[in-house]
Amino acid sequence: MNNIIFTHKVGDSLKEVLNHIAASEIFILADKNSAKNCLPLLPLEKVKKENIIIIEGGENNKTISTAEKIWNVLSTQGAKRNSVLINVGGGLVTDVGGFAASCFKRGTKCINIPTTLLAQVDASVGGKTGVNFNGLKNEIGTFSIPDMVIIDTCFLKSLPYRQVLSGFAEMIKHGLLLGGEHFYCIMEINPQKIDWDNFLDVIRESVSVKDKIVQQDPTEKGVRKSLNLGHTIGHALESLALERGEEFYHGEAVAYGIIAELALSVKKVGFSLAIFEEVKNYIKKYYPPCIVVENKEELYELMLHDKKNEKDGVNFTLLKEPGKFIIDNYCRREEIIEALEYCF
Amino acid sequence: MNNIIFTHKVGDSLKEVLNHIAASEIFILADKNSAKNCLPLLPLEKVKKENIIIIEGGENNKTISTAEKIWNVLSTQGAKRNSVLINVGGGLVTDVGGFAASCFKRGTKCINIPTTLLAQVDASVGGKTGVNFNGLKNEIGTFSIPDMVIIDTCFLKSLPYRQVLSGFAEMIKHGLLLGGEHFYCIMEINPQKIDWDNFLDVIRESVSVKDKIVQQDPTEKGVRKSLNLGHTIGHALESLALERGEEFYHGEAVAYGIIAELALSVKKVGFSLAIFEEVKNYIKKYYPPCIVVENKEELYELMLHDKKNEKDGVNFTLLKEPGKFIIDNYCRREEIIEALEYCF
Repeated sequence: MNNIIFTHKVGDSLKEVLNHIAASEIFILADKNSAKNCLPLLPLEKVKKENIIIIEGGENNKTISTAEKIWNVLSTQGAKRNSVLINVGGGLVTDVGGFAASCFKRGTKCINIPTTLLAQVDASVGGKTGVNFNGLKNEIGTFSIPDMVIIDTCFLKSLPYRQVLSGFAEMIKHGLLLGGEHFYCIMEINPQKIDWDNFLDVIRESVSVKDKIVQQDPTEKGVRKSLNLGHTIGHALESLALERGEEFYHGEAVAYGIIAELALSVKKVGFSLAIFEEVKNYIKKYYPPCIVVENKEELYELMLHDKKNEKDGVNFTLLKEPGKFIIDNYCRREEIIEALEYCF
Repeated sequence: MNNIIFTHKVGDSLKEVLNHIAASEIFILADKNSAKNCLPLLPLEKVKKENIIIIEGGENNKTISTAEKIWNVLSTQGAKRNSVLINVGGGLVTDVGGFAASCFKRGTKCINIPTTLLAQVDASVGGKTGVNFNGLKNEIGTFSIPDMVIIDTCFLKSLPYRQVLSGFAEMIKHGLLLGGEHFYCIMEINPQKIDWDNFLDVIRESVSVKDKIVQQDPTEKGVRKSLNLGHTIGHALESLALERGEEFYHGEAVAYGIIAELALSVKKVGFSLAIFEEVKNYIKKYYPPCIVVENKEELYELMLHDKKNEKDGVNFTLLKEPGKFIIDNYCRREEIIEALEYCF
């Protein structure tokens, strides 16, 4: 993880990184919330006011037109290829900012300072960038590893509980993918009572699961597909909620995606029923209920649009046991609809 | 050059490539001209009508909104990551199509069938994709090598003379970068009388100059900057013509850029005055005159926006002799303005 810093002194770390990369100009991207709560924690005295780009928060703003807004500032303010864009915020900011940076002059430098648990353990690392298009999540984007990611739990102390849960779902996923001690460590955490000052090592271990997989397969031709555990069904639930205007966070959708995809794993590749029950009960205990899905066909249609699908049928990563995943399992409509029952 | 095919049977070659990559769906991008003149030469009977995307030609249409039009068709018609977009046309089509493909679901497959000399020897190979933004050329784009490029001179037989010249400027550049026999071969060609049936080998040699350089440095951190010979000043001339609405082709601008940058090479790194004169006379003999530039400061300002500039001053690739280039020469305003005199 040589491009990820875990720190309790984000300001000092940022200074060091900026000294090291010697960018010609510094630009900042933040959403309104992180501009208010997080930018004051960073040493940005030398950054020109015109170089600070504030965007509206919310999935609705993860669009090409937000990327154009960023490009417009970069272009107008004379950004060059070795200028740097520092993305400060949650997954929206690191995804759209990372996309904008990766396409500006075919790639300008980029630093992520993720300020939500979700962005720290998932969105800001691994180089997937993107915006939504035609109602489909991350339909347009690039693979582009940021020059540096700086992770400090200080930003998480004021995080609303549902946002903690949203990030924690990815940690459950990483626990399932790695297995062993780390999986049991995750299952023993009470997400309502996290001591953030002593949580940096757990985050580091969780991120390292993703990082190792991404190193092996940056552009998702093979093993990286394992990181989609919970996401094929999760993305469909999330798209449905977005369509309806219901608030259902990414990680909440992924948590229920994990339940359904573990149910498929039990049925298709012999995952332990006992561990399935344990994970399902954990999620149902701490997470808000899943959105209501009356017409499961509609969910299935959304899954067919998933980027990972290469032929007819829906492609899943399934688990044989914690730590042993199998990519490229094609499941049938009926199997998927049956598995969805366990979410409700 | 394992992803470039030189052929006199483009239809057969395309069939073979499509068999090999086994894409789930085939999409075609063409401009109006190439749709009319070139698509009939290709075996596209099996491609759905809805999957054929026709865009307006002309640099004015090399925009994000054209990319959005392409994404819209891909998305609506259910394109997947292993679908393929076949770009049939000149540099506009391969640049914007390559960009759209590289960002759709973070990268779908892409084949280029360049139908102009410029696209064959330059734009369609090497993986630079992009669209214009804020009046600046290729301000937004990616580095993304196409899965295959198929080059057939059959498309060039009906090419207007100014478009021949436009592509030929890149061949002069490749000749200068490689030096030796190839350079003298290029200087002996009369672009008014090219025998296209016997020109494929010259194109192959020219493309191989670029290909070798790109292989060494795909993202232009070092040696690839050599390919900008003639382009720093050329792009500024082209931007100026675009602003004014004057017709001045990319390669015409590059040809005059080559003259000015060889003048800088004579002055700064000892390039032979005799060869400079030879190249200058060649270009002035065959090319239309350079656009009128009354205010050379304006041109200089445009150069400062160039992607290759990393600090103050303008970064040039200069030549010590044919075959010996030196990247990262920073030249001063006065030196550049003096060199521009040789264009007129």
